[in-house]
Amino acid sequence: MKMNILVTLDSNYLYPLKVMLKSMFFHHPDDTFNIYVMHSRIKPEEIEDLKQFAAREGSEIIEVKIGEEHFADAPLLMHYTKEMYYRLLAFKFLPKELDRILYLDPDILVINSVKPLYTLDITGYLYAAAYRNQLGTAEVNKIRLKPYDIDAYYNSGVLLMNLALQRQYIDEEKIFEFVKKYHWKLILPDQDVMNALFARLIYPLDEKIYNYDVRKFRSYRTSSKGKFDMDYVIKNTVFLHFCGKKKPWHPDYRGRFHALYKHYEKLAFPKEEVVEEEALVVASV
Amino acid sequence: MKMNILVTLDSNYLYPLKVMLKSMFFHHPDDTFNIYVMHSRIKPEEIEDLKQFAAREGSEIIEVKIGEEHFADAPLLMHYTKEMYYRLLAFKFLPKELDRILYLDPDILVINSVKPLYTLDITGYLYAAAYRNQLGTAEVNKIRLKPYDIDAYYNSGVLLMNLALQRQYIDEEKIFEFVKKYHWKLILPDQDVMNALFARLIYPLDEKIYNYDVRKFRSYRTSSKGKFDMDYVIKNTVFLHFCGKKKPWHPDYRGRFHALYKHYEKLAFPKEEVVEEEALVVASV
Repeated sequence: MKMNILVTLDSNYLYPLKVMLKSMFFHHPDDTFNIYVMHSRIKPEEIEDLKQFAAREGSEIIEVKIGEEHFADAPLLMHYTKEMYYRLLAFKFLPKELDRILYLDPDILVINSVKPLYTLDITGYLYAAAYRNQLGTAEVNKIRLKPYDIDAYYNSGVLLMNLALQRQYIDEEKIFEFVKKYHWKLILPDQDVMNALFARLIYPLDEKIYNYDVRKFRSYRTSSKGKFDMDYVIKNTVFLHFCGKKKPWHPDYRGRFHALYKHYEKLAFPKEEVVEEEALVVASV
Repeated sequence: MKMNILVTLDSNYLYPLKVMLKSMFFHHPDDTFNIYVMHSRIKPEEIEDLKQFAAREGSEIIEVKIGEEHFADAPLLMHYTKEMYYRLLAFKFLPKELDRILYLDPDILVINSVKPLYTLDITGYLYAAAYRNQLGTAEVNKIRLKPYDIDAYYNSGVLLMNLALQRQYIDEEKIFEFVKKYHWKLILPDQDVMNALFARLIYPLDEKIYNYDVRKFRSYRTSSKGKFDMDYVIKNTVFLHFCGKKKPWHPDYRGRFHALYKHYEKLAFPKEEVVEEEALVVASV
């Protein structure tokens, strides 16, 4: 099966992107991917490198470069560039014949097949996304995003997009209007906009399967009465999401999935195995 | 390259053995193995299953069944069966044409190529083994095994065996004699015997590369001044050894390499990916 993947990023995230893609390729030996890379500032040689990386696994990188002329009049928030609109308005820049695409953040590991999600029936929904169910997140964000009456708070790190319906339904101007009016309330602008404007048209996914926040291992295990232990996660969870500021490709990271992340990182960046002479012998003996 | 591997176990360890073998196959896409399984009680159907498991990866299981007639006069220790001698006296039961073999415990993950170790020059040594360098282990065992003047204490979980020299040098009777005389001092009989009788003829390996005790992550990192962080371990360590009573295939295990172990376990025991209906939707939204 051939599946469409969307990523939007700048050069700083090319490194984890490769790890994410490698983990995805690994769990799909019989599938290939068309990976749309939506960006404004990645260098041509970096795109070329990425193309070769994907080609080695039988997949294709399709560059979607957003020129200066786009979003020229869009309202901008402090600390955010116009890239904040890419995810919400991707449907405008993707080929008309695509009717669905799976958006993935680059700080994700894919540890099981994405097919059950990719083939999900989302007729009538703009997105399928994981509902953040714990720690009162939904309640806090409900209050923050008033007067928009949102039913739930979804994480936008994994989004199965119904592009056909988005083309009919999503109005760029309404999004800009919302951002102008509520800019002082927005913390994660694209995610907030999605929740405030579209929450009712999002198909809710179990975050423990489709957007597993690696910081919440204990909380998931407890709230599932022990079902979501490490064994179950490795066998069933599809996306491990390394949420938060500490990232597993940073030297000072620590966490339960650190060794696993490093494992995929090594697969993504294989090297000559350098075993130093000193490693073979303990000099002091 | 074709390499010889030795394991000695009973049916209880067939499960982790498969995980260990799978991890080894994974890191040697261009190599194959002759795996000698030395045992007295594994059922024929279990051996057959293991043969198929290895054959799928282009490797071969060679059964070395030890009959009742062997070790009939060997002294036995409380709680130990005559299997305690298998590792020490394997050279007697392996084909005469083998001159080296790599013994591995089944509670090990192979996470990089074993070739640099396998091809090591050990002329004049009976074994290559990892020297346990920390927490005073060597000192404690030196005192315990007096009057045998041992220089170091080696772990017998990973042993590169020089079978040619062992056939010339190792005397079964001397081993039995030692066990009879010092039986009350022995804690891990085969490892103690190896250390007491042969320590000077063991080529010392760095345990952090060739016999990484997963419980000692912090201590390794500190004693190496930060060099042996997770990144370095995943890229350079060859054998992760899950020492101690808590094993990563037990439900209550926890530890830094848990997710990684579960990953290889899933590769060893692939199943139809069962994503339950409930996982696709959060019912309460």
